[in-house]
Amino acid sequence: MSLSAGPAGGPVLVVGSVALDSVETPFGRVEGALGGSACYASVAAAFFSPVRMVAVVGEDFSYENVAQLAHHDVDLAGLRRVPGETFRWRGYYDYDLNQAHTISTELNVFEGFRPDLPEHYRHSPYAFLANIDPELQLSVLDQLVRPRLVACDTMNYWIERARDRVLEVLARVDIALMNDAEARQLCEEPNLITAARRILNYGPGIVIIKKGEHGALMLSRESYFSAPSYPLEEVRDPTGAGDTFAGGFLGYLARTGQTDDEALRRAVICGAVLASFTVEDFSLRRLFRLTQEEIVERYDEVLTMIRCGAL
Amino acid sequence: MSLSAGPAGGPVLVVGSVALDSVETPFGRVEGALGGSACYASVAAAFFSPVRMVAVVGEDFSYENVAQLAHHDVDLAGLRRVPGETFRWRGYYDYDLNQAHTISTELNVFEGFRPDLPEHYRHSPYAFLANIDPELQLSVLDQLVRPRLVACDTMNYWIERARDRVLEVLARVDIALMNDAEARQLCEEPNLITAARRILNYGPGIVIIKKGEHGALMLSRESYFSAPSYPLEEVRDPTGAGDTFAGGFLGYLARTGQTDDEALRRAVICGAVLASFTVEDFSLRRLFRLTQEEIVERYDEVLTMIRCGAL
Repeated sequence: MSLSAGPAGGPVLVVGSVALDSVETPFGRVEGALGGSACYASVAAAFFSPVRMVAVVGEDFSYENVAQLAHHDVDLAGLRRVPGETFRWRGYYDYDLNQAHTISTELNVFEGFRPDLPEHYRHSPYAFLANIDPELQLSVLDQLVRPRLVACDTMNYWIERARDRVLEVLARVDIALMNDAEARQLCEEPNLITAARRILNYGPGIVIIKKGEHGALMLSRESYFSAPSYPLEEVRDPTGAGDTFAGGFLGYLARTGQTDDEALRRAVICGAVLASFTVEDFSLRRLFRLTQEEIVERYDEVLTMIRCGAL
Repeated sequence: MSLSAGPAGGPVLVVGSVALDSVETPFGRVEGALGGSACYASVAAAFFSPVRMVAVVGEDFSYENVAQLAHHDVDLAGLRRVPGETFRWRGYYDYDLNQAHTISTELNVFEGFRPDLPEHYRHSPYAFLANIDPELQLSVLDQLVRPRLVACDTMNYWIERARDRVLEVLARVDIALMNDAEARQLCEEPNLITAARRILNYGPGIVIIKKGEHGALMLSRESYFSAPSYPLEEVRDPTGAGDTFAGGFLGYLARTGQTDDEALRRAVICGAVLASFTVEDFSLRRLFRLTQEEIVERYDEVLTMIRCGAL
């Protein structure tokens, strides 16, 4: 398949947060820059497939931001604008870019977020439930009509406060994405492989463990795939890498319309490739100037990085 | 190439420590069990190629241990037995098996270790200088006559105390092996890829970064290879994994007689496969009961774990 082929599987629904992030890393800083899981995932998925976003913003959300998302073919019918301020996150990273340090989180209008799917969204064949309250993830699942493939993410906050609800979500999705620390925490199990296999027992047919600079693992009951991360010497801001990964992954599957192991593996590499671009700059800047040629080129590079012959 | 083919490149010299380890992990414990970098690397390499060991032991080193090493086709002409006690290490691992905690280190006869190569060792075409005082590594390099391929390891202890000597060694070897923390420390550089490239500038044509459960990276000026670790649910004792990796890696290269990028990649997987067996049990127990069939089978499994098609 070539990236210029048309979408075969249909649109991807993305539900998550839109945020205005203030981030400082050893390599620079931004104030009130576009962020949030729904933005990263939507723009990444939109490189491959039509995308429908469900999120909420406040009155301070600029037309410029809206225009940028719309320009990248994200359907914004599900983006509600309500009185108040947009979700704001302020944080920093030290040289250990794997660890985000939160300075402040202002939920603002995100606190009252109740995802309400526009009618034409309800038949979306693909859906990504980004890291939000599992109650809201369940409500989206209730609104979807026979989706073909649903993936979810979660985080330590919900695992600690609403573990049962997280497990309910996992029982109803096809693909669970989370990072290595979250998988270990969810299963109270230090061995990552054991933890991943246990998550499969919670329901999803596929679990994907994101390991940051160490790549990603994808497990099903029959298959195991280990993907490297693209080796970057200049990581400026890791914010949004995981959501970008999820968007690229699901967007690619939606484009191909395939869900076999081979397609899933290619989708994981697509996710890792998209994420590797996101972290090269702050906010969504790199994604906004990314081309399909660059995606294909880096994908091919990754293939040469993992090529190995038989004994 | 099949593992049953004869060695094409010639014997591997291994210089390092022989130790009697007392190790406790959440999965068991051993007292005074065979260990040390030279043992792990030699036995791993011996699965592929003849091995010549250079190390020192004390009067407490049992005939049983000698017999086990000899049984695995390790040439022990360079194993000196001197008055005193063998090097002893006592340590433990918590559930985070990536971090060894040292309780005590008794250098004993290892403190006076001066590697003196038997005459027939000096023409060894392959050599692994395990993690020992870089002065001793340099002395081995002085004794070797036109080796074809020399690899070295090092550790934080020497990087902190004898950085210049470590750099001298790196300037004289073909392949530098170290773990990710050591690479970052040596280069005072948080980005692992940047650190690895800087190590190439110190001299070796190839640098291999061992990342424990996250696999290994191999870089040269022209090539980049990312290898996964074999996914294990039962890791009993990670002691010796890195040295086993080095032994398997160099042993495989010695067997093939090849040093091209393709052979190096296969060698990295061989190293990772051998290491995955070592950590399944304490001391060298798993290596001592390992078969060539098991190596080939796990190697093939790893290939299926990294298989991915073009876009």
